[in-house]
Amino acid sequence: MYTGILPIIPAAGRLQGVESGVKVAALGGGHGLSASLSALRLLTSNLTAIVTVADDGGSSGRLRDELGVLPPGDLRMALAALCDDTDWGRTWRDVMQHRFTSREGVSGSLDNHALGNLLIVTLWELLGDPVAGLRWAGALLGARGEVLPMASVPLTIEGQVKASTHGVHPPGYTISGQARLAKAGEVDNVRLVPQDAPACPEAVAAIHDADWVVLGPGSWYTSVLPHLLLPQLRTALCTTKAKRLVTMNLDINDQEATGMNAADHLRVISRYAPEFDVDVVLADPSSISDVVEFTEAAAMMGAEVVFGRVGSSAGTPVHDPLRLAAAYRDIF
Amino acid sequence: MYTGILPIIPAAGRLQGVESGVKVAALGGGHGLSASLSALRLLTSNLTAIVTVADDGGSSGRLRDELGVLPPGDLRMALAALCDDTDWGRTWRDVMQHRFTSREGVSGSLDNHALGNLLIVTLWELLGDPVAGLRWAGALLGARGEVLPMASVPLTIEGQVKASTHGVHPPGYTISGQARLAKAGEVDNVRLVPQDAPACPEAVAAIHDADWVVLGPGSWYTSVLPHLLLPQLRTALCTTKAKRLVTMNLDINDQEATGMNAADHLRVISRYAPEFDVDVVLADPSSISDVVEFTEAAAMMGAEVVFGRVGSSAGTPVHDPLRLAAAYRDIF
Repeated sequence: MYTGILPIIPAAGRLQGVESGVKVAALGGGHGLSASLSALRLLTSNLTAIVTVADDGGSSGRLRDELGVLPPGDLRMALAALCDDTDWGRTWRDVMQHRFTSREGVSGSLDNHALGNLLIVTLWELLGDPVAGLRWAGALLGARGEVLPMASVPLTIEGQVKASTHGVHPPGYTISGQARLAKAGEVDNVRLVPQDAPACPEAVAAIHDADWVVLGPGSWYTSVLPHLLLPQLRTALCTTKAKRLVTMNLDINDQEATGMNAADHLRVISRYAPEFDVDVVLADPSSISDVVEFTEAAAMMGAEVVFGRVGSSAGTPVHDPLRLAAAYRDIF
Repeated sequence: MYTGILPIIPAAGRLQGVESGVKVAALGGGHGLSASLSALRLLTSNLTAIVTVADDGGSSGRLRDELGVLPPGDLRMALAALCDDTDWGRTWRDVMQHRFTSREGVSGSLDNHALGNLLIVTLWELLGDPVAGLRWAGALLGARGEVLPMASVPLTIEGQVKASTHGVHPPGYTISGQARLAKAGEVDNVRLVPQDAPACPEAVAAIHDADWVVLGPGSWYTSVLPHLLLPQLRTALCTTKAKRLVTMNLDINDQEATGMNAADHLRVISRYAPEFDVDVVLADPSSISDVVEFTEAAAMMGAEVVFGRVGSSAGTPVHDPLRLAAAYRDIF
């Protein structure tokens, strides 16, 4: 019945199948990936977002439980970041991002569900194919680029407590699930379940086809690292002829990276994927406390460090899309 | 932020604000209105659907309770009937009509919700205007025509039991709510609460602007009659210079019209709105048992009866869109 072929895209004459600019594959999840996409969309329409599918919290977690589908939330956020910059694109973006709030005193089964999550799940159920469903959602938004899941099956992320922030669990205790792991403090032996799930073939192809692969920013263990834990994706990331760029977080010491400095972040990547060479590490100078240690950790991965002021001027640890875009452009 | 102005419509070059054909306002609700719209869309794009908003059952009823919004279900069905006849329009129609089914054994808060209901409610919450929200939903579908609610506030329909089918309630007992009323057997003193709710101004304007007003088919008490119970809509229906057409049901003896023949259906309209003159009554000969009595009842409203074979050839009591369209065309 459905072809799965990208339909004619509304309200966006420029998007008649013509793509231009450097080919970029951006990997991550959540707000971090949104930040890099918001910058990269200013540079190219030849853009593929590759998104973690291990979320088990909030609206996504409930949909995963109730309907047995991929968690759609991070995919929705990536699509929203790529929406066409027209009244049409922005309106459907806001529709996708809208969350229901039940009336006071009413048992709210819809409470906190994002409409876009429900829309994406509907397309999946209707088309029977995660990639085709995301293409239709992207067409609705006139999205500048494509959004793909890292795998076509829901994944679970597990790790062992090193030193719990809250002291609830003893060291070595295994925590299962992204939502809980992100709050567990320092973790070790992070892994995906199932460990050998196949990567989304279109994501593997996009990594091989890219001029640049951009990893991060984002929650280091639950949004960035998972891409290097999935065997087929890791192989693609390590063997692609694309240049590799790692974008550091602004808030180095977020909850799941307690006690880690910026150099530790790079060492985590090297520990889990020693064969992953990096060409450039992009960091805001304000978030790097020990420049020498950091530069050495980058050099161990084969990477040159580019320092750029890419944070928001508001002082919050949020990337500024224009500054980040300028930094990416200079690097590319 | 939002203009509420109809955006550029996707994938439908013909719908660049150019409307053509006879101007028709079609009133009803549920499957009956879908049937008339599926026929009328073949004749004109100058089409306005005016839809009851008294539903309190199923997905619509739950949304009404939980979020305090108009029941969207009948509006969604009307939009679906008008979708653009392209891969784009049909896909988004199927998305709108899709209902969630929870996995077995899982408590299903989304179970049986239609995605289109949730999408329409989102647009309402975002735009703060029922008509603007329906225009955006129509634009998504490339809808051929416009869909309007009869009123901008949720209505409740009440009636008194004449003779209960199930014998549960004594005669005279008041039943409140469309879902229950539709199953109550013969009812009397049917009324809307609030009785003097304002009609949707765009609906009133469409009735005055029309060449033809089409009422029915549909559940007689809960989808057809309500349009004549709302004072401002009734005044518009009785004073418009448009010609008036009533389309009879094929299944005359459905649950809420137990014991009534076709002539009784017309008498119900006359009893509740004696000043409502009708130009043409369209009926399938197979559903009219007493032609003389029926023709006389129509004549009492000033109407000529047009008999036409408009039912599906499958033998089910469903209107065939092409036959119904042919009958409408001949009448117009």
